[in-house]
Amino acid sequence: MRTDQQTIRLSLVAPNGRMGKAIVAAADADGGFRIDADHGDVIVDFSSPEALAGSLDRATRSNVPILVGTTGLDDFADRRLAEAGRSVAVLRAANTSLGVALLSELVERAARVLGTDWDIEVLEMHHRMKRDAPSGTALALGEAAARGRDIPFRRDEARSGRGLERVANDVGFAVLRGGTVVGDHDVIFAGPEERLILSHRAENRMIFARGALAAARFLHGREPGLYTMRDVVEAL
Amino acid sequence: MRTDQQTIRLSLVAPNGRMGKAIVAAADADGGFRIDADHGDVIVDFSSPEALAGSLDRATRSNVPILVGTTGLDDFADRRLAEAGRSVAVLRAANTSLGVALLSELVERAARVLGTDWDIEVLEMHHRMKRDAPSGTALALGEAAARGRDIPFRRDEARSGRGLERVANDVGFAVLRGGTVVGDHDVIFAGPEERLILSHRAENRMIFARGALAAARFLHGREPGLYTMRDVVEAL
Amino acid sequence: MRTDQQTIRLSLVAPNGRMGKAIVAAADADGGFRIDADHGDVIVDFSSPEALAGSLDRATRSNVPILVGTTGLDDFADRRLAEAGRSVAVLRAANTSLGVALLSELVERAARVLGTDWDIEVLEMHHRMKRDAPSGTALALGEAAARGRDIPFRRDEARSGRGLERVANDVGFAVLRGGTVVGDHDVIFAGPEERLILSHRAENRMIFARGALAAARFLHGREPGLYTMRDVVEAL
Amino acid sequence: MRTDQQTIRLSLVAPNGRMGKAIVAAADADGGFRIDADHGDVIVDFSSPEALAGSLDRATRSNVPILVGTTGLDDFADRRLAEAGRSVAVLRAANTSLGVALLSELVERAARVLGTDWDIEVLEMHHRMKRDAPSGTALALGEAAARGRDIPFRRDEARSGRGLERVANDVGFAVLRGGTVVGDHDVIFAGPEERLILSHRAENRMIFARGALAAARFLHGREPGLYTMRDVVEAL
Repeated sequence: MRTDQQTIRLSLVAPNGRMGKAIVAAADADGGFRIDADHGDVIVDFSSPEALAGSLDRATRSNVPILVGTTGLDDFADRRLAEAGRSVAVLRAANTSLGVALLSELVERAARVLGTDWDIEVLEMHHRMKRDAPSGTALALGEAAARGRDIPFRRDEARSGRGLERVANDVGFAVLRGGTVVGDHDVIFAGPEERLILSHRAENRMIFARGALAAARFLHGREPGLYTMRDVVEAL
Repeated sequence: MRTDQQTIRLSLVAPNGRMGKAIVAAADADGGFRIDADHGDVIVDFSSPEALAGSLDRATRSNVPILVGTTGLDDFADRRLAEAGRSVAVLRAANTSLGVALLSELVERAARVLGTDWDIEVLEMHHRMKRDAPSGTALALGEAAARGRDIPFRRDEARSGRGLERVANDVGFAVLRGGTVVGDHDVIFAGPEERLILSHRAENRMIFARGALAAARFLHGREPGLYTMRDVVEAL
Repeated sequence: MRTDQQTIRLSLVAPNGRMGKAIVAAADADGGFRIDADHGDVIVDFSSPEALAGSLDRATRSNVPILVGTTGLDDFADRRLAEAGRSVAVLRAANTSLGVALLSELVERAARVLGTDWDIEVLEMHHRMKRDAPSGTALALGEAAARGRDIPFRRDEARSGRGLERVANDVGFAVLRGGTVVGDHDVIFAGPEERLILSHRAENRMIFARGALAAARFLHGREPGLYTMRDVVEAL
Repeated sequence: MRTDQQTIRLSLVAPNGRMGKAIVAAADADGGFRIDADHGDVIVDFSSPEALAGSLDRATRSNVPILVGTTGLDDFADRRLAEAGRSVAVLRAANTSLGVALLSELVERAARVLGTDWDIEVLEMHHRMKRDAPSGTALALGEAAARGRDIPFRRDEARSGRGLERVANDVGFAVLRGGTVVGDHDVIFAGPEERLILSHRAENRMIFARGALAAARFLHGREPGLYTMRDVVEAL
């Protein structure tokens, strides 16, 4: 239990969803949070795209920061988030693992330093039930690499057949699916006769709940703006 | 230098090709072989599909075993190889690494033991210039897995997009391309909360030349038949 | 739930121990087992060295097979197990994961095939609280390799300093400790310019409980003898 | 061939040593360098501790920067290097791979961000002939981690036996030796249910020669001071 910090009240939008329950469990274990349906210090929304408008309204009306972990949001949602970010602190994250957020920062840095004779490849493995590929996290890592190298993000994926050509500066993606794997990500910088490989291994989905708590702590009392998990990592 | 074995005379079909030169260098280092353009104990052909008919003719006429490492052969070549195998020893190999041959055997064994709740995935990485995907070796490893599990070999590859479904018993393939990587192969058996991973790492192309020498030694004095690198490994 | 097999009654020696509870949960999920404190078809003992004598007595008196997963047993226990194995089926396993049992078989096979120019190294990683090193499983894998190569098992470990010499045929061990890692094992065959790596990743301790159920199913109705998890794998 | 940069003349102290020859070959391939025994723009010394004094004298007398890749230097050498660094640019590196230099920077950054509930472990693998352990590069990576976390660098290595305890903030080391491995390094941050792994793979020793050229280019015209490969990476 943490005694050196103020208890933060979380207003969970969907406390009985899969992530909602995980966050309740993580908050229990942490000791620095209280779940408080209505009047939280931070609103936490890991529910559905449909709920977003209501959550953002509540955040701006009550002048309370909000963490949005909902996936599958469209461009209209982007605009709503940006608008809300003008009056309260808004953090949007597809993946709330601190390790992945740090990985993304390191990937951007490595891509900035290494020249174009280092090819960039992203490999991910998830359980057999995952139906989208590459994972949102893999794509975000590829974008971080492209940003670091200051090039447009172009994907080279679904490689199969003959006469294929690897275009310099494309980011390659490879996808493994099987078993019960929670989530493995590798960003491979393959240069002339050497490789730099930056990897993350998730052992358990609880890391996303604990990362959400870290994000909530970051948001508490934070000034208006649009934030990401990278900001949480920078502030650690 | 080996002194316990008879020197084997190799008749190299294309001694100045990339593999030809590597085999000459490996034979030099080994000490148990002599390159002997015309009258070899074993014919070694790593040249082109066009040369195959002539090499097989020479092998059957002279009653000498032959190692065929040529890639890109068609079905007609398959029939010619089978025919030659009735009168002399014929070994055909797309990959002459002993490590890969052993890996293939282990993959088949693992697939035989593990039930269908263990998904089978094959990952390979090669240098940025390789233009076919998945690699021939990766496909051969997938076939070995299917053979072990006694199922038809169906590929699940080029995963990209949404609504994807991993069909049980399909063999998944993932492809990485970059830098100067000689050849990495991983066969992943992903079961319920555990994984068995069988991997090979080639550090240098010379391993293929040394494997060719081991195959030639296996073929020397061998009775007629069609052989693979797996037979070389079994006989070690 | 399995309907094609007879329900097996397990007599659990310590149903409230860590492994006992896991086995109860795994049996629940499997549906093919019933926990039956006294009159089981198979006795399952994952308790303490002190309890072993009583468990073996009960097995031999009731003529019921027994699975012994207890660790830290001494040589005297070995003799007792051998003695019991003359009248009932006895299976002793330090690690009841099927994947690890299969890995051990593959390691023995690979060591049999590969010559002494392939060095054998075992790497393991476990959580920060594990106090023994190398892990019992790592040592068992090293023994399997030595058995395959038909050499005495000699360990090369705790490498630190200068003037170190890697003796051919020694099995090297490297140990990582950190975080919450359930158990990673890699057996590396490092040859001239190529490597064969055989690995196991445990994602969750439940795999040991499920492996114990597979062992119990193997033991049910089995003739007297001393068995290992390798026999369970061979019989799959 | 680079045409956009001035040709740099290298004065190689031991052009016929192993690294000397490699640097000559790399300079040939690069096209931007000329080997010029006496009057170089940069002195490059990968020879022996005994030669250092002479090389430093020459650098300071001729007012020319110097790259020192010699290993096995003592504390007295450290003082000499520091002294020379007051009048000319001096870069000392035990490992001149750019990938390793960048890895070291990323390790320091990761250690700065991640709390003490993330254990730090360093794993390295080298060929069977390497006689010191852990490698100098592994130790340097461990030091970078300690620096990032702002703790004294304490090594936890040579783990073997029972009753071992992993002390928080110690940096663990594990060592693999076998085959012909040029050099693999992994820094593992093992946190609660997730891992961040930062790795480097050297495929060929030529990377050290190419890194030495990058260091020489960095030193050319550089102001006096003591530099490391990290400075070369920062300046890329």
